[in-house]
Amino acid sequence: MVQSPDWLHYQAEIHPQREALIFGQQRWTFAELDADVARLAGILADWGIGLQHRVAYRLRRSPEQVMLAHALTRLGAVLVPLNTRLKPGELEPIIQNADPTLIVEDGSDFAWPDTGHRRIILEELMEGSLAQPLFTATLNFEDLHALVYTSGTTGTPKGVEITVGNQWWSAMGFGLNAGLEPHDRWLHIMPLFHVGGLTILFRSVIHGSTVVLEEGFDQVRTYDTLIRERISLLSVVPTMVHRLLELDGDAPPHLRLALLGGAPAAPALIERAHQRGYRVVPTYGMTETCSQIVTLEESEWPKRAGSSGHPNLPVDVRIMKDNRPLPAGKVGEIWVRGPMVARGYWNNPQATRTTFHDGWLRTGDIGYLDPDGFLYVIDRLRDMIIRGGENIYPSEVEQHLVGHPGVSDVAVFGVQDEEWGQRVAVAVVVSDPALTPKDLRNFLSNRLASYKIPSIYYRVDAIPRNASGKILRATLRDQTSAMTKWTENHDL
Amino acid sequence: MVQSPDWLHYQAEIHPQREALIFGQQRWTFAELDADVARLAGILADWGIGLQHRVAYRLRRSPEQVMLAHALTRLGAVLVPLNTRLKPGELEPIIQNADPTLIVEDGSDFAWPDTGHRRIILEELMEGSLAQPLFTATLNFEDLHALVYTSGTTGTPKGVEITVGNQWWSAMGFGLNAGLEPHDRWLHIMPLFHVGGLTILFRSVIHGSTVVLEEGFDQVRTYDTLIRERISLLSVVPTMVHRLLELDGDAPPHLRLALLGGAPAAPALIERAHQRGYRVVPTYGMTETCSQIVTLEESEWPKRAGSSGHPNLPVDVRIMKDNRPLPAGKVGEIWVRGPMVARGYWNNPQATRTTFHDGWLRTGDIGYLDPDGFLYVIDRLRDMIIRGGENIYPSEVEQHLVGHPGVSDVAVFGVQDEEWGQRVAVAVVVSDPALTPKDLRNFLSNRLASYKIPSIYYRVDAIPRNASGKILRATLRDQTSAMTKWTENHDL
Repeated sequence: MVQSPDWLHYQAEIHPQREALIFGQQRWTFAELDADVARLAGILADWGIGLQHRVAYRLRRSPEQVMLAHALTRLGAVLVPLNTRLKPGELEPIIQNADPTLIVEDGSDFAWPDTGHRRIILEELMEGSLAQPLFTATLNFEDLHALVYTSGTTGTPKGVEITVGNQWWSAMGFGLNAGLEPHDRWLHIMPLFHVGGLTILFRSVIHGSTVVLEEGFDQVRTYDTLIRERISLLSVVPTMVHRLLELDGDAPPHLRLALLGGAPAAPALIERAHQRGYRVVPTYGMTETCSQIVTLEESEWPKRAGSSGHPNLPVDVRIMKDNRPLPAGKVGEIWVRGPMVARGYWNNPQATRTTFHDGWLRTGDIGYLDPDGFLYVIDRLRDMIIRGGENIYPSEVEQHLVGHPGVSDVAVFGVQDEEWGQRVAVAVVVSDPALTPKDLRNFLSNRLASYKIPSIYYRVDAIPRNASGKILRATLRDQTSAMTKWTENHDL
Repeated sequence: MVQSPDWLHYQAEIHPQREALIFGQQRWTFAELDADVARLAGILADWGIGLQHRVAYRLRRSPEQVMLAHALTRLGAVLVPLNTRLKPGELEPIIQNADPTLIVEDGSDFAWPDTGHRRIILEELMEGSLAQPLFTATLNFEDLHALVYTSGTTGTPKGVEITVGNQWWSAMGFGLNAGLEPHDRWLHIMPLFHVGGLTILFRSVIHGSTVVLEEGFDQVRTYDTLIRERISLLSVVPTMVHRLLELDGDAPPHLRLALLGGAPAAPALIERAHQRGYRVVPTYGMTETCSQIVTLEESEWPKRAGSSGHPNLPVDVRIMKDNRPLPAGKVGEIWVRGPMVARGYWNNPQATRTTFHDGWLRTGDIGYLDPDGFLYVIDRLRDMIIRGGENIYPSEVEQHLVGHPGVSDVAVFGVQDEEWGQRVAVAVVVSDPALTPKDLRNFLSNRLASYKIPSIYYRVDAIPRNASGKILRATLRDQTSAMTKWTENHDL
């Protein structure tokens, strides 16, 4: 069994004066963060929190939340970060499933569901008296490190079991791909309760890089932070790139990599970003793989435009159909194996059995590998539209439509149809008021087979997306009756 | 169990055109090396070599040897590199212990011991016909990867069981410490049959860096290679640094790190190297830890002069006495734990039991940790001299003596003595013919306690060292009768 000395304390020993965490005007060196975390870990130990105890937290975006994450790690406890956007009714099944020893909150106004679990306010916890600060620890790679509840686009949230080892390997995969530079500085603008935001915290202490925690994304302020804090690394979703490109300024000079995740990225967006000097690279990953496992290096652009990149070492990716691997070029379900793949779903043996097979994770995504092992993700299996026996991938259609100058945002989805089984529908946010569905059909007719061209059009003000930027296609499907049809053409 | 796609093939997929191997005028890209290795692996498979078969090889320093190492790795076979300096009588017990399926040789003149093992000449093997090249493989981290026989300064060689995982973790430890830069280029001047030279080959394919294989160390030619090939990384033993510093030229401009290992380095040497612009950093490691596990970053110099550095993540180091850990500052035996620590000694359960304890490696080295976790290695346990109940560490005395301008090289060792148990002897290579033992005693008297000052002096032409640069103290002890005493002073 692999073990490791506590990561944060390690960095405090070798780089005590290096900046570890920045939040607005507040700054902590690794030595200072280590000391604050040692204090908090000591207090939590006095509260009886120990090895593999589950501690849930619902906290505002704050350096104290970062400290709590490191303190729980040092204690060998299990982090259960709760999504602050969820309503009490949505949170209740998560708390019931995680059944935490303790819930830490920030005292903000929230109608906690009555689950009978003990709650404490973080500020009061930190003001508590302390017997002994806790500086060192041995981390066991096979221990559970976090339960991250998937913000899946459908169904009940599942608690993904992230181990200590998963965090480590996720950090390694990133470093092997992106390189490790001793003075890297991350701008952290992802939610702290998602795997993407959580892994940045642990990459930082494993690699010794600085985290600059932004209060939230604001294109003007965030751009200013990128420059002022000499940011070299950034994780973003496509919307953020869109907004940064709306600004006039040059790409921030120290930014060496902007990892684009969350939702499939249109090649046109990446192309625009590159033209403006933003080193944006597509990635692929999910909660079950402890974030990014596939990255397209900048040097592969535009040769492999549309690819999410090559799996990071030592990730193995296979394309499967009927439980057999397919050769290069063939489309099937993406299966993934590697030491960053989660153990299963907490307290959910049925979902675990369905998704995790003999070391392999069935991602539910559809794609193919090219002969050099580069992955092209086509779509979610469940989002695939089957029209008269033909498979249609919504994201393929969307990627063409966003290239139309009159389209600001777009989502393609299937609707039930007696004749075809399903038909292709599209919701469009227009930037040109004169645009008509006929224009879009004409635009697509040279680009796509006719069966892929949407036959049902909706004009909407915004596309519903989750916190990661993924289109909520189920929401669209459910809300068609409330949306105004733009036009309809049954002949397509 | 952790698995990985074949490392070399991975690099060939993502960086096909990057240089992988350079030897004089010959150059291979990763795609070219991958193809040559695929061919050789296919031939070896036709010969029946498969998973966990042990294949010994005694080969001249050549790119073909590198290809063989990668081909065996791809097949899941076990590399048994044989030290080309050993005499047939020295090799025999190693071959008997390893009991290989096949021995690969280069056809050079060598009186092979008659052990009954099948031998083949590499050139003939490579000229053989081929059914099918072998491009891909799955590497299992728990499989044995190599048996590296220790060039211990005493005793029978032991086959250190290096696993595939050990190689991986060794590469990770290096990368986390030194950083990973996408275009790193290693100058490889270490023996390929030692762990230090072997690990460079696998770091290269795990990190995607270039290996420039030198025929051997020659200060003028090697300096030229450092500049011409834009070398950024280098592993050296102290003698090589000495010789490079004898040259007039500036430090090679692309060299970002020269890892100093093999023998304890005198702070004076490192200081001189730094003054000349060579970024030399002390390291600590051994065959049983799959090479370097502790590194002193340049920024710690001269604050922690004399330290070998901080353990790389996730290595755990303890200082032990009577099976109990000692606090910071206390001197004891160095114990090491981590996923790069070897599994044991091949076919030698007794030595395995003595050295490997419950995940910990008893290094047999003496040292202490400072309060920040930095390691100071004092000496080998077995080299320690006990004079009248006082412990004396030869390397401490040597490090002072090499600082004397009239001393070119020096070795301190113990000799049996009825009165004191042991007395301190020294063999000196002088650079100033006028130097006398009295000068050295005076020089030391302000620097060391009197009981540590050598009382027996020999003048020698050269200090006997092994291939790693380690002083062969046992040889010195055995040869005192053949050495001319320089003077003797029983009063000390």
